Amino acid sequence: MINNDTICALATAQGGALNVIRVSGSKAVEITASLFVPRNGKPLKERKTHTVIFGDVFDVRGELLDEVLLTLMRGPRSYTGEDTVEISCHASSYIARELLMNLIAKGARQAQPGEFTMRAFLNGKMDLSRAEAVADVIASGSRASHRLAMNQLKGGFSRELAQLHDKLLHLTTLMELELDFSEEDVDFADRTQLTALCVEIEKVIARLVDSFGIGNAMKNGIPVAIVGETNTGKSTLLNALLHEDRAIVSDISGTTRDTIEGVMNIGGTTFRFIDTAGIRVTTDIVEQMGIERTLDELSKCNIALWVVDPTMDKEKIETAAKRLLPLCSGKKLCIVVNKCDATDSLTLSQAMDYAVALVEEYADGVEYDKENICAISAKLGTNIDRLQDFLLTAAALPEISSDAVVVTNVRHYEALCLALADIQRVQQAMRDGFPGDLVSEDLRQCINHLSEIIGTVSSDSVLQNIFKNFCIGK
Amino acid sequence: MINNDTICALATAQGGALNVIRVSGSKAVEITASLFVPRNGKPLKERKTHTVIFGDVFDVRGELLDEVLLTLMRGPRSYTGEDTVEISCHASSYIARELLMNLIAKGARQAQPGEFTMRAFLNGKMDLSRAEAVADVIASGSRASHRLAMNQLKGGFSRELAQLHDKLLHLTTLMELELDFSEEDVDFADRTQLTALCVEIEKVIARLVDSFGIGNAMKNGIPVAIVGETNTGKSTLLNALLHEDRAIVSDISGTTRDTIEGVMNIGGTTFRFIDTAGIRVTTDIVEQMGIERTLDELSKCNIALWVVDPTMDKEKIETAAKRLLPLCSGKKLCIVVNKCDATDSLTLSQAMDYAVALVEEYADGVEYDKENICAISAKLGTNIDRLQDFLLTAAALPEISSDAVVVTNVRHYEALCLALADIQRVQQAMRDGFPGDLVSEDLRQCINHLSEIIGTVSSDSVLQNIFKNFCIGK
Repeated sequence: MINNDTICALATAQGGALNVIRVSGSKAVEITASLFVPRNGKPLKERKTHTVIFGDVFDVRGELLDEVLLTLMRGPRSYTGEDTVEISCHASSYIARELLMNLIAKGARQAQPGEFTMRAFLNGKMDLSRAEAVADVIASGSRASHRLAMNQLKGGFSRELAQLHDKLLHLTTLMELELDFSEEDVDFADRTQLTALCVEIEKVIARLVDSFGIGNAMKNGIPVAIVGETNTGKSTLLNALLHEDRAIVSDISGTTRDTIEGVMNIGGTTFRFIDTAGIRVTTDIVEQMGIERTLDELSKCNIALWVVDPTMDKEKIETAAKRLLPLCSGKKLCIVVNKCDATDSLTLSQAMDYAVALVEEYADGVEYDKENICAISAKLGTNIDRLQDFLLTAAALPEISSDAVVVTNVRHYEALCLALADIQRVQQAMRDGFPGDLVSEDLRQCINHLSEIIGTVSSDSVLQNIFKNFCIGK
Repeated sequence: MINNDTICALATAQGGALNVIRVSGSKAVEITASLFVPRNGKPLKERKTHTVIFGDVFDVRGELLDEVLLTLMRGPRSYTGEDTVEISCHASSYIARELLMNLIAKGARQAQPGEFTMRAFLNGKMDLSRAEAVADVIASGSRASHRLAMNQLKGGFSRELAQLHDKLLHLTTLMELELDFSEEDVDFADRTQLTALCVEIEKVIARLVDSFGIGNAMKNGIPVAIVGETNTGKSTLLNALLHEDRAIVSDISGTTRDTIEGVMNIGGTTFRFIDTAGIRVTTDIVEQMGIERTLDELSKCNIALWVVDPTMDKEKIETAAKRLLPLCSGKKLCIVVNKCDATDSLTLSQAMDYAVALVEEYADGVEYDKENICAISAKLGTNIDRLQDFLLTAAALPEISSDAVVVTNVRHYEALCLALADIQRVQQAMRDGFPGDLVSEDLRQCINHLSEIIGTVSSDSVLQNIFKNFCIGK
């Protein structure tokens, strides 16, 4: 996989005041120098690393393309570990295109998405989990997701994995020593000691696996299902929460048939709102499928907003409550009594009492008090701020310290789950008195799964798959 | 206007792989240093100019914000002429926002649009016409417009103006010497010599004024009017030329009532297509206004495409031709016979003959040969390439050499027109034998108008007006 041909790409987005073009590889300096004339002093090739040079870039016909600032970083002291030149030019799409075409004419080639970071990984500048954190840092849009990505980029997770790896290797050595000398009937490793080491390792892996629940919620948003009968204003509520017209809203019952999602940052926490099809008795097959999906979404979310229309028949409300509320056990639930602008206060308070009674009847073990019921008008935006307060309290994500290790990446999570199963099999095998060679096979598996995360064991296809989701120029 | 408080702004567009934040002013280094810790070596304040430093940026709470590359350029060797730091960070909107907020918390302020370039001007790094060229370079989207902007940025225009300025000053000195000693009845300056100098200056200014026609066409596109009867497919033709659905197209006559523009680069030349309301006898007042606007647009453009529907009554074609063709004198005209896909060849050739006859009758002095008539199908895209060839030939913009001085800026053009009038008044006054003090008044005016262009004479409001159209971060 390692090659050192010279790659180039635009590293900034179109627009703005300046563009940066990155060139990296064994001929980065030579190729750039062939198009560049410094205003003063020595030619580019004779410059020291980590210096900035003002000058002119000409195209292959000798025509002035732009006045630029070149930044020279010689390998291995660069992002990729290779010789790198960054060209900071005026942000004209014409200049960017011409400059790239001229670099290519001189022997560079257009970089693949994520190829600069892939080279950083292949050249040993960072392990795979840190390379992946680069993409997460770029994508981070909130304080929490930024902190998680920075922790991973700084290598806290990598260090934790390295420690695990060392412990597992130690365990394997002990196990295999026992194996080698098994005929002599000498137990080098005390089985109790081995078991204790296994338990310790399992505990660390299990903690990492568990952290994914929080990590994923912080990175992708805490899932909040908006559920209720049809035509109670769930889509209007989604739009009010998102401050936009995301969902199609109409007075016709059953307008929302598919689930609609929207992500919103409230007070530094990211929520992923899922607007669902309303629950009612229907013969429409498409609508029935929508209702099934609603129940499915509800079961996957952490928080549920049950939207009630106070002017609706009690019967209809109960029909929906019977299906929805049992699924809310173990979740945070808020009863959202909508349309308060169009309802008299008596009807409103009766509806609130009725909804509370239904929750007590059908939602087993759902904790709630008066904070968990809220009269709003989604249409006018009344009390949406109270609802946001409820969400922030219900989310109650722990403050992640700046050196906490939290797993946020699905690939890492899956590898950790496999490693967890491996180490549990190891323990079972030891309990069952299996021979050392069989046990150590599972141990090797466990090491492999952890190594996949930091990339010491990785295939081309895994790498391609990881870096193809990067942007070009990174 | 000059102040050296420290400004900061995001210089790149949102997205991409990296963002650059610029900090400039007397405290740029101090403020940045308070948030930055280099990975190795000396603190930022002790670093040499034009070096790049890898390190970490922390927020005011001490939390790691990002790993960054800092570029240090100490004044006067920087774009603004002041101490400048550029922070190259991961392209996360969260990081960009936090970094700017932290710089501001430490004493910087958000830059106004174009403020970095305005400072470059105020600190004598570039004159006003070159500062304006920066915005043109960024906006340039074609080879021709890029070359014009680069020529201006390199200072060719400034040098030409400086020479003019010197000549005018020389002329004024001669004139005022004559004035001072007029009572002694000594003519220091030979009037013939003065007149010759005036003529020379007028010639240069007139050439610059004339160049605006080409310069403006290259910068903003050559205006091409698409005219014809109603319902001949003008909007469909616009869409075919632009490869997009820009104009609303329908079978109903009179759909286009306003003029619709679209800019397209064909073979390196920029064209500005203007789709106009169709010409027909109508009592609809809005439509009549549209027709008036069509005639107005036609009179302002360089090239006209007359779209003819071959299946239409000859009477209707002639009605439109009578109004349109007389306005085409002095322009390049192409007869575009549309709907060739839905017309038999006999009808088609009759329509083409008829259109040619109408041009001969009504369009006085329009040059054309068989290149200027084209049977197309706008709907299917048939022969659009032939039409593009015609446009390129008709445009026939001269190749601008890489040191040609061409005026592209309306502000410069207006100042030059005033200067031209001034120098012409000077000549008239000399011919009429006016006293030297009156003549030199006009000469001073002429110098002032030229000085406005390079900014040696400029008011705050003029500067604000120029730089407000820049992007933030430039």
